[in-house]
Amino acid sequence: MEKGGLISIEGIDGAGKSRQAERLGKSLSVAGVDNIVTFEPGGGVGGEPFYQLLAGKSLRGLGAATEALLFTAARRHHLDSLILPAMENGKIVITDRFVDSTRVYQGFNDAQLARKIDQLHDLMIGIEPDLTIVIDIPVETALQRVHQRSGGDTRLESFGEKLEELRERFIAIAQANPHRCSVVDGDRDEHHIAAEILVCANELLS
Amino acid sequence: MEKGGLISIEGIDGAGKSRQAERLGKSLSVAGVDNIVTFEPGGGVGGEPFYQLLAGKSLRGLGAATEALLFTAARRHHLDSLILPAMENGKIVITDRFVDSTRVYQGFNDAQLARKIDQLHDLMIGIEPDLTIVIDIPVETALQRVHQRSGGDTRLESFGEKLEELRERFIAIAQANPHRCSVVDGDRDEHHIAAEILVCANELLS
Repeated sequence: MEKGGLISIEGIDGAGKSRQAERLGKSLSVAGVDNIVTFEPGGGVGGEPFYQLLAGKSLRGLGAATEALLFTAARRHHLDSLILPAMENGKIVITDRFVDSTRVYQGFNDAQLARKIDQLHDLMIGIEPDLTIVIDIPVETALQRVHQRSGGDTRLESFGEKLEELRERFIAIAQANPHRCSVVDGDRDEHHIAAEILVCANELLS
Repeated sequence: MEKGGLISIEGIDGAGKSRQAERLGKSLSVAGVDNIVTFEPGGGVGGEPFYQLLAGKSLRGLGAATEALLFTAARRHHLDSLILPAMENGKIVITDRFVDSTRVYQGFNDAQLARKIDQLHDLMIGIEPDLTIVIDIPVETALQRVHQRSGGDTRLESFGEKLEELRERFIAIAQANPHRCSVVDGDRDEHHIAAEILVCANELLS
């Protein structure tokens, strides 16, 4: 059986990642490409406690190295319980966030830790996506969307003036990894964004 | 200010680790040695969610690599929030379990993962204890004690016939690291065990 593939959708909160992941999954299904759509943190069979732990408030105030280990644990579980079995069955796995999010958020303020996060990934995860879509939007647009959606996202706001730097770090990862990354302008009508992402996915699959 | 030290107490469940950690702390205090007694998983400021996650049932059925990452995350938090600040203040830190427990339990069935656990520790934790006491008891004694204490410990029992092998792995780690490890016979009156552990600690401190 043909081995599947892994597509990650990355970008800051409010970029429209989950919406575009769903749209891509549906478009691929219409084209007859067997796929699943998933997310991090907390994706995978029985992964809910990871979501509660990492998206909730119980562990606020952890150091960045501890957070990087927790996100990597959640990712290992995601791989073992869902991503790798699906790929072995020939499916395309579309995930809303993967390792680049850990690189951007936890490696943010500390170049030494950023290098360790890469080593940690190589040691304990060991696969990069076949295709990564970075959805890029202006910080102001991201903040407006997140406010409309949830009435305020403390994680997003906790970055304050550094949100622009987070956005730039996603772009920098894409520029350093052109073999797998494409940056898509997310400040447009979502149909146009979806069409551009589908072109990238079709190039991977052709 | 003089830098403190790290003493870990290791062994299978029921070996008497927490009791001996408390006794050692009290004996050192009587001798004027400033110390704190702590534990894994879940030790450190605000570390309770790690305890609930790793000692509770919410995440049963994880792979060993995921578990190793979670225990290492809890350890990094333990270090940052408690162990390293205490050592910087010249204290002796006595911990009921540390990295050798991860090596034994999560590296149990998989030699490749066991090597990765060592690399993970070097990368993300980076310190070994100055002294490790392995309290060794027969498996039958351990099972009796745990049953008396709690009416059954599913983790202990889940190892079944392999409990003897876990015991042997603690001994093997001690034999491979004689510069920091001492094996103490735990199948005796606890006063005798405490006295022997105190001799080891005094050698470290002298």
